[in-house]
Amino acid sequence: MTIAVLPESLRATLEPRLPAWVVPRWWADVAQMHDLAPQAEIGWFDLHVKPPALRAVELAQDLRWLNCGYAGVDWLPLAELDQRGVALTCGAGLTAIQVAEFAVMGMLTIAKDYRAVVRAQDRHEWLAAAPGTRELAGSRALLLGYGAIGQAIARMLRGFDVDVVPVRSRSGEGALGPDEWRAQLGSFDWIVLALPGTPDTAGIIGAAELAVLRPDAVLINFARADCIDQPALIDSLQQGRIAGAMLDLTDPEPLPADHLLWSLPNAHITMHLSGIPTPASRQRAADRFIRNCDAFHQGVPLEAQVDLLRGY
Amino acid sequence: MTIAVLPESLRATLEPRLPAWVVPRWWADVAQMHDLAPQAEIGWFDLHVKPPALRAVELAQDLRWLNCGYAGVDWLPLAELDQRGVALTCGAGLTAIQVAEFAVMGMLTIAKDYRAVVRAQDRHEWLAAAPGTRELAGSRALLLGYGAIGQAIARMLRGFDVDVVPVRSRSGEGALGPDEWRAQLGSFDWIVLALPGTPDTAGIIGAAELAVLRPDAVLINFARADCIDQPALIDSLQQGRIAGAMLDLTDPEPLPADHLLWSLPNAHITMHLSGIPTPASRQRAADRFIRNCDAFHQGVPLEAQVDLLRGY
Repeated sequence: MTIAVLPESLRATLEPRLPAWVVPRWWADVAQMHDLAPQAEIGWFDLHVKPPALRAVELAQDLRWLNCGYAGVDWLPLAELDQRGVALTCGAGLTAIQVAEFAVMGMLTIAKDYRAVVRAQDRHEWLAAAPGTRELAGSRALLLGYGAIGQAIARMLRGFDVDVVPVRSRSGEGALGPDEWRAQLGSFDWIVLALPGTPDTAGIIGAAELAVLRPDAVLINFARADCIDQPALIDSLQQGRIAGAMLDLTDPEPLPADHLLWSLPNAHITMHLSGIPTPASRQRAADRFIRNCDAFHQGVPLEAQVDLLRGY
Repeated sequence: MTIAVLPESLRATLEPRLPAWVVPRWWADVAQMHDLAPQAEIGWFDLHVKPPALRAVELAQDLRWLNCGYAGVDWLPLAELDQRGVALTCGAGLTAIQVAEFAVMGMLTIAKDYRAVVRAQDRHEWLAAAPGTRELAGSRALLLGYGAIGQAIARMLRGFDVDVVPVRSRSGEGALGPDEWRAQLGSFDWIVLALPGTPDTAGIIGAAELAVLRPDAVLINFARADCIDQPALIDSLQQGRIAGAMLDLTDPEPLPADHLLWSLPNAHITMHLSGIPTPASRQRAADRFIRNCDAFHQGVPLEAQVDLLRGY
């Protein structure tokens, strides 16, 4: 028998499908999560705020498998989990669709300047001219990051006749290699970031990269805040050297109310909302957890198991 | 030699490419358009406001070919043009991409409740929970109208894994016939209207159709205002019997500032902006006009020539 400490919010979906060897304990709030954590051999401690989830991992010294519904796991103590022999599974792919839909929505709303339409309706004002007249059709998008999110974005954008160019470890077949994309940055309308958060990707868009973008280029970041040199980006946006940026990630989060980014007219702040679990992604997470119970029991590799040394 | 009265805004694009037999006269404003109209054998009198354009058609008694950049021509005196022997070409297909992009943007922004995100940024407020958590993936869309706009919408939505079901004159291959779709209305998340404006399509979504929609269904109208029984729709929205509606067309246009539609929280008003020419669609319109000059000269049918009796 193996004790699994699981979120009450998924009880209705999970409980009827758990294998007999799993003894579930359900947590509904942080206090219960911390009470139950020391018993956990399997733990699922997802919270949008991270410190209490980290505390649960610390309390769960019997843990053998930690399941995390989020795709990004760079906030977890990966080296420590590796030392403790804990297997970590993440939400990679589960929220890919919702994040990709959010990113493409961002591109469309910037192309049409939909914010101006929303604000006009709030004023009861009939706009006589279209505030934004860009089309996605015929535009070019550089896609940094070609995991589940990047591939979903690419598939969606191709339906709009966007020329999507992913950066991959090897170039060819429409992709650019890791040493090739910088030289071509000036040829893209959209720079879309959907990278995992690793030391390699920190600062991948810095002042030098921003300097060669076209004045009508738009940066879309659904990866990690530290992928972009934020002060350099703010400078670019203020000077109008690029057309705009949609930032699902910022430094810090949440942004304080007096932060400059809120009020830059070409900064679109989406508050890390894209990856917050939806009913559909919760269902996918529950389905994967049930499949992984079997794999865990059989001692075979788990689906979406994180390489604790690479970090994704 | 044939005198063509053309918009100054397209002069740079058109002038170098006009055939030698065309003598262009350029209008930059309504007064010039009305001054030049009586000479026009070929006329291009597009204006977002219609009465001055209609006046030009009235003044242009030598007209043999009227070119219109808009897809919808139901505002023109079609029977009179037919009597006068004037060929009419329209913008069908030229703005299809931009309208389709706008419609898909509308679906995405409603799915994620992006308006709440825009308003939160305006307040400098970091939202802790996602205001909208619907996904397009896995949803079902009924598509009324399968011309250039409808086909473009279908292509885009399929990239999002939406099950798109068009209504066509004959059913089969995933389409529903004209007598079949009403019985299945309750099975769709999205009802998307991209129909031409003809007497047949007036009131196609009335109280009876609205009554059988699901409470989470969303109506998207990029066709004509009169396709929907607007009072019945307002009633549905107010009672929360459907989740929302995006209306690019309303009755009247512009909506007066005190109209109820502005302030219904589930009505998304986009002010007939989707079809306003973009730089890309203006280029496509100019390209087609040049091709049609040759066809007109040779006396063969023109591209996108309107059947003046059918109305599209």
